[in-house]
This record gives sequence, C-alpha cells and structure tokens, in this order.
Amino acid sequence: MTNGRRLSGVLAPVLTPFRADLSPDAARLTRHCRWLLSHGCAGLAVFGTTSEANSLSVEEREALLEELLSGGIDPAKLLPGTGCCALSDSVRLTRAAVRAGCAGVLMLPPFYYKGVSEDGLFRSFAEVIERVGDARLRVYLYHIPPVAQVGFTVKLVERLLGAYPGTIAGMKDSSGDWSNTQAMLDAFSRSGFDVFSGSERFLLANLRGGGAGCITATGNVNPAAIARLSREWRSPLADQMQEGLNAVRGAVEKHPVIAALKAIVAHHSGDAAWRTVRPPLVDLPAAQAEALLGDLRRLHFEMPGLAA
Amino acid sequence: MTNGRRLSGVLAPVLTPFRADLSPDAARLTRHCRWLLSHGCAGLAVFGTTSEANSLSVEEREALLEELLSGGIDPAKLLPGTGCCALSDSVRLTRAAVRAGCAGVLMLPPFYYKGVSEDGLFRSFAEVIERVGDARLRVYLYHIPPVAQVGFTVKLVERLLGAYPGTIAGMKDSSGDWSNTQAMLDAFSRSGFDVFSGSERFLLANLRGGGAGCITATGNVNPAAIARLSREWRSPLADQMQEGLNAVRGAVEKHPVIAALKAIVAHHSGDAAWRTVRPPLVDLPAAQAEALLGDLRRLHFEMPGLAA
Repeated sequence: MTNGRRLSGVLAPVLTPFRADLSPDAARLTRHCRWLLSHGCAGLAVFGTTSEANSLSVEEREALLEELLSGGIDPAKLLPGTGCCALSDSVRLTRAAVRAGCAGVLMLPPFYYKGVSEDGLFRSFAEVIERVGDARLRVYLYHIPPVAQVGFTVKLVERLLGAYPGTIAGMKDSSGDWSNTQAMLDAFSRSGFDVFSGSERFLLANLRGGGAGCITATGNVNPAAIARLSREWRSPLADQMQEGLNAVRGAVEKHPVIAALKAIVAHHSGDAAWRTVRPPLVDLPAAQAEALLGDLRRLHFEMPGLAA
Repeated sequence: MTNGRRLSGVLAPVLTPFRADLSPDAARLTRHCRWLLSHGCAGLAVFGTTSEANSLSVEEREALLEELLSGGIDPAKLLPGTGCCALSDSVRLTRAAVRAGCAGVLMLPPFYYKGVSEDGLFRSFAEVIERVGDARLRVYLYHIPPVAQVGFTVKLVERLLGAYPGTIAGMKDSSGDWSNTQAMLDAFSRSGFDVFSGSERFLLANLRGGGAGCITATGNVNPAAIARLSREWRSPLADQMQEGLNAVRGAVEKHPVIAALKAIVAHHSGDAAWRTVRPPLVDLPAAQAEALLGDLRRLHFEMPGLAA
C-alpha cells in the first residue's frame, strides 16, 4: 500500500460483470474501471456490497484483482473489500491487497454472528492487522449496518485507532444516518481518520464537516457529476449540484440498486451482458429498466464514452 | 450421499476446536465426533452455526471433512453445512460432501444481502443443485433467521420441493418459533420432508407433530438424554424428560452458547484447549464458566467417557 497520499473524493464500489454462466468477467470489469478513473473517480472500491463481492469466492476475488493489475489499473487507486466472515479469508485477501500495493482495504466486520461484543470485533480486526503484519496496510472500516447488521461504534473505532494509529485510516459510513457520520467526524476527523459517506446524498454535508468524500454505488454511473461537487463544494452552486446528484440517485433508488445500476451500464454501453447479477440477486425486469431509463432521460443523464 | 435411510433423532452441530493460534484442530474434532456418535447422536451436523463454520474458510472446512473421513467417521452420519454467501463456495462444498458420501448437506441461504426476493433465493438453491448435478444429493434447508436474517417461507419450500422433489430432503428450523415449525410440519411432513427443530426444547412437540428429531447445539454436551427422549417420546415420562432437557439448556443459555459449550467440554474432558473460540466470538470468562458449571452440577449433569 502507498505510504503517500490518501485517497479522497469519489470512489466507486465497482460493479462486477458476470458472463451468462455467472462467472466473473475480468475484461469487462477492467474496461469499466478505466472508464470510472477517466470520468472522475479518485479511486475504486472494488469488491464492495455493490460489487456483489460476498457472492464471490476468495479465489474469484484474488483472480479479479490480479487481472485488474495486469490490465494496467494502478493499485494506488484501489481500495478492495477484504472483510469476510472467516478470519482466515480476511487475512488472505488483506495480505494480497497489501502485496499488490493497493491504497488500502475496506473491511467489513465479520457479519454472520449478530450481537457480538466490542471485544470480539476488536479482536477480529487486531488479528487481521497483526497477522498481515505490514506497515503499509491502511484499513478503512466499512460500516453498513442495514446489510451487515454488525457495525462500528465510536468506542470501537477509538479503541482500534488507539491500538493501530498508523493503520486504521478511515471509514465508509453506509448507515444512511447522517448523525452517525457527524459523530464519526466530530470524534476522529482531526486524527487522520478519513470519513467517506456511503452515499453522495451526504457528500456536501460530509465535506463541509471535514470528511474525505464518498464511496457510492451510483459512482458507477454518475462519477463526473459527483466528482465535480467533491471538487467544487465551496462554490455558491454547491447546494444546487447536490440537488442534481440527489435526483439521479432518487431515480436509481426506486429499484433494487445493484440490478438497476447494471441495467444502466448495459443500456449506455450497448452491452446487454452487463445486466446479469448473481443469485440471490435478480436481474432488473425489462419493464423496470424501461421506467428507470426513462426517468434518467428526463434528468438528461448521460454516460459519455462508455459505449465500446 | 446415501440413497438409503434418512437421518433422524438427535444431531449435533459439532463444536470446532481451535489451537492456540486459532487454527482448527482436526484431531480433537474427530475425537469429539466419535464421542457424540457413541453417546446418542444419530448424526453430526458439522460446520453449522455452533461449529463457527462461517468463521472458517472453504479450504479449512474441506480439510476438516477429509480428516474426519480419514479418521474413520462414517460419512453416512454426516450432514455438513455447505451454504455460503458465494454461489461458487456453496457449489464447491456441496460437491465435496456428495462425493464423500455424506448423508446430506445443511444449507444456509446466502446471507449477506437482506430482503432478497423469493425468486433470488429459489435461484440460489437451484443453481447449487443443478451445478452439483448428482442424484445422491440431499439438501436440508437451514432456517435460522435470528442469525442469518434471511430465511425460508412455506412458499419457497413448496417451490423448491416442487422443482427438486428427490433432492430437497428437510429443514432445520432454528427460528425459535414453534408456530413456524408447526407450519412446516403441516405443509410438508407427509411429503418426505424431514423437519428437525433447532433446539431440543421443541423436540417432543416436533416428534408428536411428525417431525424427524432435532439438530441442537446442546447435543454437543447432553446427547444421551436428548437421544433418550427422541427414542422414548411415546412414553408417559416424555414430558418429564423434556423438562429435564430444558433445565440443562436453560443453564447453558444464560451465557453465549458456543463459548459456554466449549467451556463445558473443556471442563469435562480436562482439556482446557477446548475453550478457544475464533473472533468475533470471545471465550467464556472464567467467572461465567464457574457459574455455568455450578448450575450444571446442581442438575447432576455429566459427560461420561469424555475425559481422555
């Protein structure tokens, strides 16, 4: 991992394309990563929730990471998801990311057991950090209680930062609860702890509060506009830009988000294969895709340069 | 898998012992499996929730299964857990279980995404069954909404049974909600679908209702008494036996159950190494272990033949 500049701005949790047989498609993934980096993304949070990463085996994730690197994607732009239910899996993926020179890792807590103790979660992260044992490691905590059900309290973050101050680098807050993001900013933004909101809906508020940017699903389709707000958040037009972002996000959020984003990429790339999701998700039905694309047309939404 | 007799009676979701470095300990596991089979267990649901299976990598589970077989454990007694978040992992583990000749597999639904559709869950199981593509496969559905958050409705079970009548073999119901077990019995117990309760608290009611037995965490420590009720449930003493089982379970349930069961095995085997759990769980604190063992002593609880 880089000892140098931290990632900030807009990161996309990159959609993972699948072939008709449901195997991951590294070539399409690499092309999409290139498009994202050339259209405003400061970094790529590959293997996140939006990436269907937990629907991939550890081997599939490792192979995709290798193909991204051999496809020329700069590891300094990568923040792969490496937090699994199994300690051994989290160690393996985190080690691979560090060795590849990734900017950091975005780690879910182990999410099978519910109601686990702060001690148990602290120990989970401590074991990964110590077993990887590499000063280059930068861990971003992935807080997404609506999905993982297991999350991070201010007290747990404080304990992790106290024990591993050079390693615990920040958080993606996908709680959907601004008061939680605010609490993390108040507690840690002056300690070199970079808070990313998990949705661009909170981008302006997060940047005004000292946050680092956002890691957002819709970054897969609307990166340029989100990146513009992350650069120009001090502009008098910032609130208006935020409203524009919210309108696009609102159109997407009427539908199951991952399938909806894949339908958008499929349409704008002219590549229908992009629509495929892995079970337990289901592809967006054609009628819903029509409605979604119609909503986006009315918002003058475009994905320039995406078509092959 | 056997085409012959189905498992019924008491199955233990076998505790997974760990070494001090948190690696799984196959020798201790095999010894415990032998003890369970010789003290009343009709089968072994290795790699369940109580086994901390989701805290193990796929490779670790595969290696443990191989060591159990080479240690002489009869595969016809095994019902390994093979349901993972990733389709590719579930296929791999299920295929390994079928090839090993296991009695069946106990499959969690993919549990990362919440609020997924019935179609998506149906497709998850359909893909595993068709990719494994082996007539010997017997799938037991693992319903544990308090932990997995994702579960099985009567309608989903009906659809799976309709599509794969020879393959969908039963369910473990760990909802903790007797009305759900009753609904499954009413709907499917006459269709060759074996309903196991997920706790011996419901064993008598389940057997009276046409169920097959129970797959229960406390089967790790109290198998003989639970097995006795499963054999003698028509006896006039059955309700009294049920009360005896409930008393032991009640003592265990005052504490985090997995750590508590490991503390009990550690004490009665004289092998302190058994206390170790993997994060995110934490070992039972010594004072809690003392209180638990005291409660069990007052109930005249024993584990004969366990000490090495």
